[in-house]
Amino acid sequence: MAKIKLGLLGAGRIGKMHAENIKRYFNDVAEIKAVADVFADKIYDWAKNLGIEKIYDDRRAIMEDKGIDAVLICSSTDTHCQFIIEAAQEKKHIFCEKPIDFDLEKIKTALTEVENSGVKLQIGFQRRFDHNFRKIKEMIQQGKIGDIHILKITSRDPEPPPIEYIKVSGGIFLDMTIHDFDMARFLTSSEVEEVFALGNVLVDKKIGEAGDVDTVVITLKFKNGALGVIDNSRKSVYGYDQRIEVFGNKGCLIAGNETLTNVVYNSSEGIISEKPKYFFIERYKDAYIEEMRAFIEAIVNDKDTPVTGLDGLEPVIIGLAAKKSIEEGKPIKIVR
Amino acid sequence: MAKIKLGLLGAGRIGKMHAENIKRYFNDVAEIKAVADVFADKIYDWAKNLGIEKIYDDRRAIMEDKGIDAVLICSSTDTHCQFIIEAAQEKKHIFCEKPIDFDLEKIKTALTEVENSGVKLQIGFQRRFDHNFRKIKEMIQQGKIGDIHILKITSRDPEPPPIEYIKVSGGIFLDMTIHDFDMARFLTSSEVEEVFALGNVLVDKKIGEAGDVDTVVITLKFKNGALGVIDNSRKSVYGYDQRIEVFGNKGCLIAGNETLTNVVYNSSEGIISEKPKYFFIERYKDAYIEEMRAFIEAIVNDKDTPVTGLDGLEPVIIGLAAKKSIEEGKPIKIVR
Amino acid sequence: MAKIKLGLLGAGRIGKMHAENIKRYFNDVAEIKAVADVFADKIYDWAKNLGIEKIYDDRRAIMEDKGIDAVLICSSTDTHCQFIIEAAQEKKHIFCEKPIDFDLEKIKTALTEVENSGVKLQIGFQRRFDHNFRKIKEMIQQGKIGDIHILKITSRDPEPPPIEYIKVSGGIFLDMTIHDFDMARFLTSSEVEEVFALGNVLVDKKIGEAGDVDTVVITLKFKNGALGVIDNSRKSVYGYDQRIEVFGNKGCLIAGNETLTNVVYNSSEGIISEKPKYFFIERYKDAYIEEMRAFIEAIVNDKDTPVTGLDGLEPVIIGLAAKKSIEEGKPIKIVR
Amino acid sequence: MAKIKLGLLGAGRIGKMHAENIKRYFNDVAEIKAVADVFADKIYDWAKNLGIEKIYDDRRAIMEDKGIDAVLICSSTDTHCQFIIEAAQEKKHIFCEKPIDFDLEKIKTALTEVENSGVKLQIGFQRRFDHNFRKIKEMIQQGKIGDIHILKITSRDPEPPPIEYIKVSGGIFLDMTIHDFDMARFLTSSEVEEVFALGNVLVDKKIGEAGDVDTVVITLKFKNGALGVIDNSRKSVYGYDQRIEVFGNKGCLIAGNETLTNVVYNSSEGIISEKPKYFFIERYKDAYIEEMRAFIEAIVNDKDTPVTGLDGLEPVIIGLAAKKSIEEGKPIKIVR
Repeated sequence: MAKIKLGLLGAGRIGKMHAENIKRYFNDVAEIKAVADVFADKIYDWAKNLGIEKIYDDRRAIMEDKGIDAVLICSSTDTHCQFIIEAAQEKKHIFCEKPIDFDLEKIKTALTEVENSGVKLQIGFQRRFDHNFRKIKEMIQQGKIGDIHILKITSRDPEPPPIEYIKVSGGIFLDMTIHDFDMARFLTSSEVEEVFALGNVLVDKKIGEAGDVDTVVITLKFKNGALGVIDNSRKSVYGYDQRIEVFGNKGCLIAGNETLTNVVYNSSEGIISEKPKYFFIERYKDAYIEEMRAFIEAIVNDKDTPVTGLDGLEPVIIGLAAKKSIEEGKPIKIVR
Repeated sequence: MAKIKLGLLGAGRIGKMHAENIKRYFNDVAEIKAVADVFADKIYDWAKNLGIEKIYDDRRAIMEDKGIDAVLICSSTDTHCQFIIEAAQEKKHIFCEKPIDFDLEKIKTALTEVENSGVKLQIGFQRRFDHNFRKIKEMIQQGKIGDIHILKITSRDPEPPPIEYIKVSGGIFLDMTIHDFDMARFLTSSEVEEVFALGNVLVDKKIGEAGDVDTVVITLKFKNGALGVIDNSRKSVYGYDQRIEVFGNKGCLIAGNETLTNVVYNSSEGIISEKPKYFFIERYKDAYIEEMRAFIEAIVNDKDTPVTGLDGLEPVIIGLAAKKSIEEGKPIKIVR
Repeated sequence: MAKIKLGLLGAGRIGKMHAENIKRYFNDVAEIKAVADVFADKIYDWAKNLGIEKIYDDRRAIMEDKGIDAVLICSSTDTHCQFIIEAAQEKKHIFCEKPIDFDLEKIKTALTEVENSGVKLQIGFQRRFDHNFRKIKEMIQQGKIGDIHILKITSRDPEPPPIEYIKVSGGIFLDMTIHDFDMARFLTSSEVEEVFALGNVLVDKKIGEAGDVDTVVITLKFKNGALGVIDNSRKSVYGYDQRIEVFGNKGCLIAGNETLTNVVYNSSEGIISEKPKYFFIERYKDAYIEEMRAFIEAIVNDKDTPVTGLDGLEPVIIGLAAKKSIEEGKPIKIVR
Repeated sequence: MAKIKLGLLGAGRIGKMHAENIKRYFNDVAEIKAVADVFADKIYDWAKNLGIEKIYDDRRAIMEDKGIDAVLICSSTDTHCQFIIEAAQEKKHIFCEKPIDFDLEKIKTALTEVENSGVKLQIGFQRRFDHNFRKIKEMIQQGKIGDIHILKITSRDPEPPPIEYIKVSGGIFLDMTIHDFDMARFLTSSEVEEVFALGNVLVDKKIGEAGDVDTVVITLKFKNGALGVIDNSRKSVYGYDQRIEVFGNKGCLIAGNETLTNVVYNSSEGIISEKPKYFFIERYKDAYIEEMRAFIEAIVNDKDTPVTGLDGLEPVIIGLAAKKSIEEGKPIKIVR
């Protein structure tokens, strides 16, 4: 069978990582044939070195290339919907980084195009592929904890992004919590019916001046009756804190942080173990590989992708509702 | 110095425990001289055996006894305010079990009486005296985590009380969460400004039929800017789950569950450690001793009690607001 | 039933602790009626305060007192055998601190006297009563780990005793490891057949100059086929390290250290938990109570004590063999 | 720079794993050009699939191939010395699986040949490259625990190999403990001066009938004064148990087992976490990659390999001494 030919749209940190993972882990079944980046010069050496044949500064060359089977959309969020539509029209399968967009109508238009064209679409919620969280999902499916009553997600970053990024990020709910909203849907297998969000500016005043908050606690009411809570902070001095707890009538599953080693140092100052892995690139290293494996397998075996367009849409709906909740100081019912 | 003479009002499970602790640990400085219980017959043997001289079925005999320095109010909640008032009028110091009452006006009246009489009053929030939570408080005071940003309290019971008890309990917020509201105030050293509560009946339909919920997630907004969340369940199959986490700009303190032993069993079925200590009597065994030590010391050294009337009032205010939040489906601002 | 009347022989730190425990926990069934200490002046206030009626500087007054049912021998090791013999002859039950003596013949003579007189004798190996180790014992008896293959005991002190003490301590094996030898026999329910000891002076040269070692690793061959290893250090900078592991064909039981609280401090320096409880007095606080409970119950119910004279003899035999092993540089078979 | 051309000698489980790792992780700098295996037919498809050009049933074709820069000796132990000598004579660098051989003279002859020829030799002690143990080594080197006093290594297999394998394995010390002997040298940076071993047949009588033991406790005396102990079992029902503890005058470092996930299941049966990763292939997956990286880098940068011929020789010396210790029932001094 011929290798799947991929076109990479956007070669920033995430785009490069995906390309390198494909080269290393899926070389037998897939290859990046072309890359398009607005700063084509800057990525030229990197791309050549990785064996990517064609390097463009405009994605249209990739869209028009009949030899390309699928695209990886890793460009800035504002380009996602446009690129999805173009790729769908060209019958190319699509892997798109999160979030699809901040605008629900634009997302829906893009998803309709995908549906009409029949191409596969996978959204880049890599945490679903994390070994710990996947294990929790499996154990829930095996009935180990019975019905879910309470879901708790802690997600705290080691440090905030630059203020310039925050200004275009869509706000903490669409940039950061969006992963937790996805995880909430993934683990409960249920939709969120109501959101209530508390937020404050406790980490950096400049975040507040940029119109955002940096510390939030969000409660979720699920259709299946479960209750959920997410807490986020833009800055945790002990590192990237990523914990999940799912409590049901038959038990409770808890995933703690991951560390580089498990060495414990018994010292005169106390019993000291390691801080969590630094940030998402390190923490979800294997998850990024596994999500790409799933995308490639969906194409190779012509089956559904595990993170669909709807899975990309729903967290944006919840995120916008959380934003509104803060603005209005009350819980927001999700209307679909 | 003469021993402090105590009168015990109500000799149910908690009342007996306090009496036994006083006998064992504070025999040198205090003694239960009299007990009053509506079922005086039933406690006769127990009281005699413990060396309690006088056994009544009406508390008035104790109130009128000039030889009694202080009372321990361990009777049913509906009697608390009346007994507080009577004891205050008789210039007896007061230890009163939580909650003081479900009615704010009644509480305020009782507290005014206490203030006017100048007697000492301590409310039975024993968790403040738990070694783990006290350590967290100390470390916060030492500045170990800087400013508090997020507070998380998990409190889940091993099994629900009888439905008959639930009906008179004041509801989950005044019966169960009230301890968590107190802990929230204790650890943040700040007052709650707004409460939002989600609740559902997931454990037992009969609890719902009794007009209560059994699974709740409550968010708190504190005056100092911190955000908080409490989650409760009336039934946790793995036992009494009592965990606390306080996250600040300089670190995060976490207290886990306590177990009877720390033996880990490495078996073919997995690596198995013990479930938490069974329930509050076992879990807070030492905390009950320490709260009584504090009460006795406050009397002996004529200093303030560590859990004041206001500390008894505030959690009821928050609890009633949480109840209202569920009823109205929106966050409730605390008006004092 | 009348209270058991006890005579305390030696009111040093351990003697005082036993007396205070009896007063607090076993006041209903037992009381210290008399104490004898060579420095009677120094303990006078303490004894009066505790309500001990008679205070002597010579134990003979206690031995001759027909009203005394049992003695607690907490005096220096060189007096143990003599006091055991005297108490046995006076038909008084005996609780004796470890080690009985360093001389096997003296011990055997004393034990013969005990046997002839029919009094009860319990040796102060308090670790057998520790909640963790007792749980391991129970789980072994329940067959949880099947047959024992490997036993590992780690026992490290927070700091060495004064050199003057070391000189009269009988050496590390009879002073420190003796507890581990007892634990080994207790957990395996088997006798030691062969000992091999490695030792070195790594903590303090003065210990070497006193003719002792401060760091040892000892292997044990048990009659039932199990293999064991004990490691000791006189100085562990992170505190009193007391861990046990028992590995069998059906599983492995591990008991870790105990801490004052379980609070974990997530800091920029790492994830820090508490050091172990400071030293034996703190670590085995409850075990000391439980061993006394067992002694009193054995008298009250006229049953065997749980730590017999043989249990006092055997660890001395093993300790002397370990000493010989170091001297001769080879394993020593235990001859009984 | 041209890729390093490798010849693989022996394509059993370990040989295949190395080849696959090289293909995936070091494709840019190295490639397996030829493989020789006595069962060439059986590996044909595997080799072709991996892109290995030449497939032989005799290693001589590889030895004579001037285009091959280095060989990976993954054939049976009895061939190692012969292949090392041949490769050295042909000026090919050598990676050789452990143990080099069971015969000290044969090993020394081979190492002399290596030295004379000037080729690089690395022995396959992959555990040195494990992230946990490497971290311990680094922290020791940073002085975190000061001088080493006690070293403890636990190494227990999930199940014994087939009896037929045991018969040719050289015995537990040369097959299994050899890794621990290497780790002991690696972590202490000191040589073993004396070995004492206890062993028994507790797992499977057939192992005893094959002349071996299955449960051992071995003590080590190091040149630098440290004391060590290793315990091994051929069968641990809870899985592959690989723990290390290094205790020094400034602290103690402990590495626990690795698990596939860190999910904890709080159930009515207890708090259950995962068993260790199944066996060495899973447990040391990354370590096998890292050792190969080190070998390739040593060639590319013309520097010393991190696991030398001496590092291959010493554990065999210790293993033979341990064997003798069991046979003679006494400690054995290492004579070099």
